[in-house]
Amino acid sequence: MYNAPTNDMLFVMKELAGLDEIAALPGYEDATPETVQAVLGEASKLCGEVLAPLNAEGDRNPSRWDNGNVRATPGFAEAFRQFVSGGWQGVQHPQEYEGQGLPKLVATPCIEMLNASNLSFALCPLLTDGAIEALLTAGTEEQKRHYVPRLIAGDWTGTMNLTEPQAGSDLAAVRTRAEPQGDGTYKLFGTKIFITWGEHDMAANIVHLVLARTPDAPAGVKGISLFIVPKFLVNDDGSLGARNDVHCVSIEHKLGIKASPTAVLQFGDHGGAIGQLVGEENRGLEYMFIMMNAARFAVGMQGVAMSDRAYQKAAAYAKERVQSRPVDGSSKEAVTIIHHPDVRRMLSTMRALTEASRALAYVAAAQSDLARRHPDAQMRAMHEARYEYLVPIVKGWSTELSIDVTSLGVQVLGGMGFIEETGAAQFYRDARILPIYEGTTAIQANDLIGRKTLRDGGAAAKALIADIARTVAALGAQDGAPFKSMQNHLARGQQALASVVDYVLANAKTDPNAVFAGSVLYLKLAGIVLGGWQMARAMLASARLKSADPAFHGAKIATAQFYAEHVLPQAVALEAAIVSAKGDEGVLALSADQF
Amino acid sequence: MYNAPTNDMLFVMKELAGLDEIAALPGYEDATPETVQAVLGEASKLCGEVLAPLNAEGDRNPSRWDNGNVRATPGFAEAFRQFVSGGWQGVQHPQEYEGQGLPKLVATPCIEMLNASNLSFALCPLLTDGAIEALLTAGTEEQKRHYVPRLIAGDWTGTMNLTEPQAGSDLAAVRTRAEPQGDGTYKLFGTKIFITWGEHDMAANIVHLVLARTPDAPAGVKGISLFIVPKFLVNDDGSLGARNDVHCVSIEHKLGIKASPTAVLQFGDHGGAIGQLVGEENRGLEYMFIMMNAARFAVGMQGVAMSDRAYQKAAAYAKERVQSRPVDGSSKEAVTIIHHPDVRRMLSTMRALTEASRALAYVAAAQSDLARRHPDAQMRAMHEARYEYLVPIVKGWSTELSIDVTSLGVQVLGGMGFIEETGAAQFYRDARILPIYEGTTAIQANDLIGRKTLRDGGAAAKALIADIARTVAALGAQDGAPFKSMQNHLARGQQALASVVDYVLANAKTDPNAVFAGSVLYLKLAGIVLGGWQMARAMLASARLKSADPAFHGAKIATAQFYAEHVLPQAVALEAAIVSAKGDEGVLALSADQF
Repeated sequence: MYNAPTNDMLFVMKELAGLDEIAALPGYEDATPETVQAVLGEASKLCGEVLAPLNAEGDRNPSRWDNGNVRATPGFAEAFRQFVSGGWQGVQHPQEYEGQGLPKLVATPCIEMLNASNLSFALCPLLTDGAIEALLTAGTEEQKRHYVPRLIAGDWTGTMNLTEPQAGSDLAAVRTRAEPQGDGTYKLFGTKIFITWGEHDMAANIVHLVLARTPDAPAGVKGISLFIVPKFLVNDDGSLGARNDVHCVSIEHKLGIKASPTAVLQFGDHGGAIGQLVGEENRGLEYMFIMMNAARFAVGMQGVAMSDRAYQKAAAYAKERVQSRPVDGSSKEAVTIIHHPDVRRMLSTMRALTEASRALAYVAAAQSDLARRHPDAQMRAMHEARYEYLVPIVKGWSTELSIDVTSLGVQVLGGMGFIEETGAAQFYRDARILPIYEGTTAIQANDLIGRKTLRDGGAAAKALIADIARTVAALGAQDGAPFKSMQNHLARGQQALASVVDYVLANAKTDPNAVFAGSVLYLKLAGIVLGGWQMARAMLASARLKSADPAFHGAKIATAQFYAEHVLPQAVALEAAIVSAKGDEGVLALSADQF
Repeated sequence: MYNAPTNDMLFVMKELAGLDEIAALPGYEDATPETVQAVLGEASKLCGEVLAPLNAEGDRNPSRWDNGNVRATPGFAEAFRQFVSGGWQGVQHPQEYEGQGLPKLVATPCIEMLNASNLSFALCPLLTDGAIEALLTAGTEEQKRHYVPRLIAGDWTGTMNLTEPQAGSDLAAVRTRAEPQGDGTYKLFGTKIFITWGEHDMAANIVHLVLARTPDAPAGVKGISLFIVPKFLVNDDGSLGARNDVHCVSIEHKLGIKASPTAVLQFGDHGGAIGQLVGEENRGLEYMFIMMNAARFAVGMQGVAMSDRAYQKAAAYAKERVQSRPVDGSSKEAVTIIHHPDVRRMLSTMRALTEASRALAYVAAAQSDLARRHPDAQMRAMHEARYEYLVPIVKGWSTELSIDVTSLGVQVLGGMGFIEETGAAQFYRDARILPIYEGTTAIQANDLIGRKTLRDGGAAAKALIADIARTVAALGAQDGAPFKSMQNHLARGQQALASVVDYVLANAKTDPNAVFAGSVLYLKLAGIVLGGWQMARAMLASARLKSADPAFHGAKIATAQFYAEHVLPQAVALEAAIVSAKGDEGVLALSADQF
């Protein structure tokens, strides 16, 4: 069972992410309130009725490898047909390549629903989105016309081929070779691992985007190029030609997302896999980063999605399961467990974290739209910087949270949560990949420090911190304990974030080990405080709108207060840990042997 | 691979838990330093060489149900023979029933090793220990002579039958009936679920200890009696008689501990399962609590054990896996990932939490020994109260931690952590049951508040808090940043714990919902501060002993400093969350419909 929380989504889109402003941008005129409502309604139907019921089946009956072929879970191929024929692969892609050209802000709730309903299934479109982004950015016009409409139509799907056995987080270690054939094509040789949906039977062709080195390429990341290597070669008229020399030699046996085949791909064992260069030689990593940035945001949404799905199951169970009398003596009979304070605390934690991470992600999506379409170049640059700052946080924080939230989801169900049939355990297993793939949390945190904080001298971070201060001031104008509580805790969180940003700026050069020992903690701190900022903004909006729907807005205010009192105080603890690090003290001083 | 950390264990036993004092108690004279060292050495061998290699096999090839019979994983029965023939089931049980009569403090590291090497296997002896405890406490002399030596010898194993479909955390809802037959025996009828090792082929008989109601029993927990219901009836000469009417109708398909069969047992479908009353009618819950207290402590040790096992795997991987250049520019080549600050932070977190939870548990075990054997009755009572206070914390905190630690264990391995073959994922799955069974964390927290804090007016808690203050003072006498840091953070943690205990005492009657909404947070806060106290004591001991082994003691001091700076600050965040709760505010004010 999955019910898309469309009211919550629309509230965030309108009140926090500025849907009206986005819809007023040139090119996004189609994103009228009616269209958006209709899009969310249709997505909700497809995800709830078609994809969610296949989720447990995918876990019980995963993708299977058979002599180089991979059969997807029964039902997946049909569901994929429905997905692509509904136009869902193209929601955010340009109309000139047969996409729908809607804002990222509108695509984002659709992506959340897709992932919440069926994480394994959703990975196939997610990777295809990444491939489309890379081609649109760096491909020739011919490559775009050749590939993008077919990817959007779902005739073909896309993959990202980065990892090799010796090159995981470290792409400098990529060894796959690409030898120019003199006719503009290349032959590729090498092994790629962890290729999501790298082989399957849901589409006629698979377009692999592959990182490899040309013969004279410099060492390290500056010698990596990006290639299109289709499973079947594509003739000039768009029809499929010969089978290319890329083969799936096995798929992995994984903790979760079992329906999503994770392939080991062998390139060139039979003479060479034919590939086309994308963009220029040696600029592959740059292009891949475009793809990865889109994918990283999407993986952040997977975190939000898994949290929401786990919350829905736990809340439903807590409203049904009768066990024990209430501690306040209000009943002599056993009650549903939602009446027990600790169950309430767990559900509230799940809900508060889900809402905060959703709000932050949607606000980030709106920044991306503004960065693309705002008429003022300076504003575009400002929004771009803000989006770039937020992407590693959305990816890292939302996915780390999803582990805690899905774990609480198991705990609410108690012994039944540990039994696979109830489904809570699947969410816990599935979510565990999220802080790992598309760059581990540490990789996101390195990005947050290196490219997103140090490079601009903390400008993007400080602009956000200044905005938080304005919200703190606005809270002060409201009466009532929830607002006072949020004001205090958000102010303290904002100070913690500000002092950590200063610490990072001051010490990254002189004491890099100490600063990077706190990198993930800085990322989490930023997530907690920026998420809290969104909860505070939600609370202010709900105070304004309360009379329209007292139950809905009352819950928003109460959830924000809970977040203020249970989540925001962690900011201070994180600050203490981060700023305590010194290069030659504590555990950083131990030798490897002492572990 | 599992290497028992015997040096760490001995350090904790001697320097923190007072092994010398325990060995001086009447009846524990056998626990000489030489004996203890030998016991740990032999346990380490058995666990490392026999049980650990079977752990992954148990996951791949779990116990299987076949027409009422359950076949354990191949190799388990042979390993169980080795375990019992080595005398390991009897380590802490009385010599008069053929146990070894060693202190709980000495049995505890053995239990840790057993669980770290193979959690599923270890559950069988764990439940047998519980059955032995219950029989020793409430059984007749005849019952003790009849059952205990056979359980210690491993001819038979024991189980605890509490849960029914409608009676999980709430034992008041138990419905299984026990009808007196007039000859001193009873016939039992009912269904029990979640019965660990409830059926198997590793021993000739299974002694079920079962909660049930006699016909005239009062409603609720005051009408529950405890019965011995053996799988095979036992003749007066100890030989096995007829098959009793208790049958395993299925076993569960679980997230983890797959080798441990979790049985649904049907009592009395063919005329009634013959049982013997243990102790008096209607006092079953009281006896079961004895069994549960022992089992809860043991489950806490399972948490420590899983944390240590996950740490060992992650540390080994981090020392082997080469990836990326160091952030401080100290090498132009990629290095083993243990050189990366965030990997170091993760490993240090895993290690610090493992060491703190181990130390707290061993200190609690020593309290149990002192409570049993101290010559002074007043001291016995004091140690008993301290042990009782610590049991829910050891159970709740160590097991909740084990989820975080095993999750970090997956993260250190990155993508390889998500692949089942590496084994890190199994620890993550296996550990997830620990905060659920033998009473969820919320049940532990209710116990901590109700029986362990309110009942004595906070006396046991305050005595511990006063002891922490003495350690804070002792830290002040040491020079050096690690000691100053610990002093500051421990002092602040101690204040947080003290103010939360006062809050609980002041508000539990007037605002129970608010207090119980913070119950689990209070338990975690107590764990963090009491664990920090042990880390501080370890640091002081290592300062004294440093010259004997600078690497070992230097690591203890550095790990304690890390704990002070990364873990103890969370106490303040927990305090803020706990004391903010008011009965009619925040999420406690929402209706169930608003979730």
